[in-house]
Order: sequence, then C-alpha cells, then structure tokens
Amino acid sequence: MLIFVKRRTTMKIGVLGTGMVGETIATKLVALGHDVKMGARDAGNDKAKAWAEKAGQKASNGTFADAAAFGEIVFNCTAGTGSLEALKSAGEDNLRGKVLIDVANPLDFSKGMPPTLFTDSNDSLGERIQRAFPETKVVKTLNTVNCHVMVDPARVAGGDHDMFVSGNDAGAKGKVTEILRGWFGWKNVVDLGDITTARGTESYLMLWIRLWGALKTADFNLKLVK
Amino acid sequence: MLIFVKRRTTMKIGVLGTGMVGETIATKLVALGHDVKMGARDAGNDKAKAWAEKAGQKASNGTFADAAAFGEIVFNCTAGTGSLEALKSAGEDNLRGKVLIDVANPLDFSKGMPPTLFTDSNDSLGERIQRAFPETKVVKTLNTVNCHVMVDPARVAGGDHDMFVSGNDAGAKGKVTEILRGWFGWKNVVDLGDITTARGTESYLMLWIRLWGALKTADFNLKLVK
Repeated sequence: MLIFVKRRTTMKIGVLGTGMVGETIATKLVALGHDVKMGARDAGNDKAKAWAEKAGQKASNGTFADAAAFGEIVFNCTAGTGSLEALKSAGEDNLRGKVLIDVANPLDFSKGMPPTLFTDSNDSLGERIQRAFPETKVVKTLNTVNCHVMVDPARVAGGDHDMFVSGNDAGAKGKVTEILRGWFGWKNVVDLGDITTARGTESYLMLWIRLWGALKTADFNLKLVK
Repeated sequence: MLIFVKRRTTMKIGVLGTGMVGETIATKLVALGHDVKMGARDAGNDKAKAWAEKAGQKASNGTFADAAAFGEIVFNCTAGTGSLEALKSAGEDNLRGKVLIDVANPLDFSKGMPPTLFTDSNDSLGERIQRAFPETKVVKTLNTVNCHVMVDPARVAGGDHDMFVSGNDAGAKGKVTEILRGWFGWKNVVDLGDITTARGTESYLMLWIRLWGALKTADFNLKLVK
C-alpha cells in the first residue's frame, strides 16, 4: 500500500481555500516537499499571496481554477457554505478524474454559535459535491478534527486515535489512506463506506463542537474501542 | 459524590418501554436490587408481563402512567418516534420533579436503513421532552451506545471509554452520573452542558450507525483522547 507514496516523492497539489485549514494543510504539504498551489476566488487574494511568499519556492497561488488545474490531487479546504461555488469556479474540467480530498463541513454559523448543519441527515456536503462533480473522485476525510490535528495527529495522545474515509471509489480511498498514513502520520484509518457515510462524520460535528466546549481544547479526537 | 448511591441501597424505578433497551436496563436494575416497574401502552402488554414474571419479585409491570408514578427515577427507553406520546400517556403529574433519564434517539426508520434523524441540528429529542415536561429534570445519556454496553461498559475494552450527560439541572446530572458510575460501572462520564447538547450525542448516531457497519459489532464505543 505504500507504493503510491514511495513511487512519487513529490506531487503537485492544489489546495482550495485560504483560511486556517487551507493554510495549515498547504504549509504541511510544502514542508513534505510537494509543489502546492493555493487557490482563492481572485488571483490576487492577499492571504494566498502572503502565504505563497512566506512558504517558499514550492508554494504558489492563483484562482480556484489555477489551483485545481495545477493539482494532481486537490484538497477542498473552503468553508462548507462556499464549497460548491468554489468548486464550480475551480471548474469541472480541472477536477475531472482527480481525487478531491474534501475536508469541509456543512456548518451554518448564520444563526450564531454553536453552528448548526445546513444539510439534514438525508444528505451531506460530501454527497452534494460528488453529485455536482460525478467524474471527480471525492473522498471525505479529516473533517472530524481540528486542522492542527489533521496534519499532525501525534500531537494528540501520541497519534493513537482514529480517522475516517468515505468515498465511492476504492482506489481513491486507498490513495487517500496512504496520504493520511504516510504524509500526515495517521495510524488508524477506518473506511466507513461510500460517500453517503459522510453523513456520519459531518453529523458528528454537532458532538465535536460540544466536546470542544467540555474539554476546553481543540486538541482532541476519538479513539474507537471494541 | 457517592452519598446518593450509598444512602439508598434500593430505589423504586420506572422503566418506560418494553423493547430490548427497556428490558436490558430493567433487568440490570432488578439485578442490582432495585424495585422496577416496566411501563407499556397497555397494562396487559405481553412483553412487559412476560418480563415481570421472569425477572422475579422485584419486578412488576403496568401502564406508562403506573411505571412513572411508581418510579422515584424514570428511564425513557421507548423508541424515539413514540417517546413524546408515551411520556404524555405517563402523565405530567407522575413525572413532576423527577429525574427522567432519556436514552432514546430520534431515529426515523420509515425510509429504510440506515435510519435518518427526525430532528434537525437546531433541535433534539431531549429538548423536545424537556420543553413538553418543564417540571421534570431530563438528563440525556446512554443513547450513544448499544443497550448491552449501557449497563455493562466493561464488556468493551475493560470499560475505559466515555459516556456523556446533557441536562439543565446540575443536581439531576450529578445523580445520573452517580448511577452511571455506581450502578453500571461507567468510569468516564463527561458533562456536555445543558439539554441542548443532546443535539450532539443524538447527531452522533448518524456516525454510530456507520461505525457499526464498519466494525461489524455493536460492542464498541468512543474513548476521548487529548
């Protein structure tokens, strides 16, 4: 299973989104030696430009379409409310046939804190993205932890806790599992099934938010025990 | 904190619901030496009668109202779709001032498997029950695990995993926490906050169902790590 990671020491990766999640993931990918283009709505986005200047030669920035076209793999790190619009702007052609790692959550902050979900339990953001881009291999993952934990699971309990993947394409899930293990250091990756299982991990955010309040830290995760 | 449990070696407890959850909890409570009345829609309910005959002298059965009137503490073990109707049948007077341990989930099986939630992320069954019975102290708990794990957490990983409580009354949550620890053996009980935090644990069911599928056992739970 490590063939994919070993064969290609570096990859070209598009990261959509300039917020803390996008920046954290993009910075980690550059640190791992990959070529990373951060995409924003506008080519001249200040946050994306500042990141690319700070992150060094392997880092660049552009529009959502630029980043999607650049990436062999694309991360969706946009806010859930804007994900479909950002991906439409990225362009179906630029995403066709590629693995899209969707880390966004369908959080609605419009009614204040704590947020609610803008999907119901019959649907998920992951599914909406997969339906809108049927020729893209959407894999939902990493959305169940804070962005610092996403790229450094060892910062919580030495990394002995669980990450989930949901997606329709077994090969894509295999690649993403290798990335999670080989690049980010996730020890336990649980395949929940097809993209409809994103309903589970996205709904879990309603518990995550309360755990964040009760534990008074975002540096936590779940370990499955049986 | 153990005063409550030690002071009263036995209590009178009402258990609403005759399904596997109600039967498992009622049987455990009788085994602990408590006097338990199982309540059903009809006084002559076959399952409740059969349980009471099998479970011995400490066990009895009756209507929802009989069980609620009997109990110093009441467990809601009815199916989520029928909980409000069952509790109305139990009667506001019979529930007034009492701790109601709500273990039900708002699962909608009408569209087939896997179930969805009949609440959205702005509401929860726990809140609906608390709103309908403002003078009852509703504590949501145990709804995040299979009924066998509810009353015997040690059957999973020696009991080293977490249970949650949600409720508006701190004293009631304290009593329920003692019950969880002292009677059932829960080592880790996390107070999530007021009854609105039931949105978190009820939404988690959407993940629980997928974990059940992926792990191929209902004998599992979450351990929080930080």
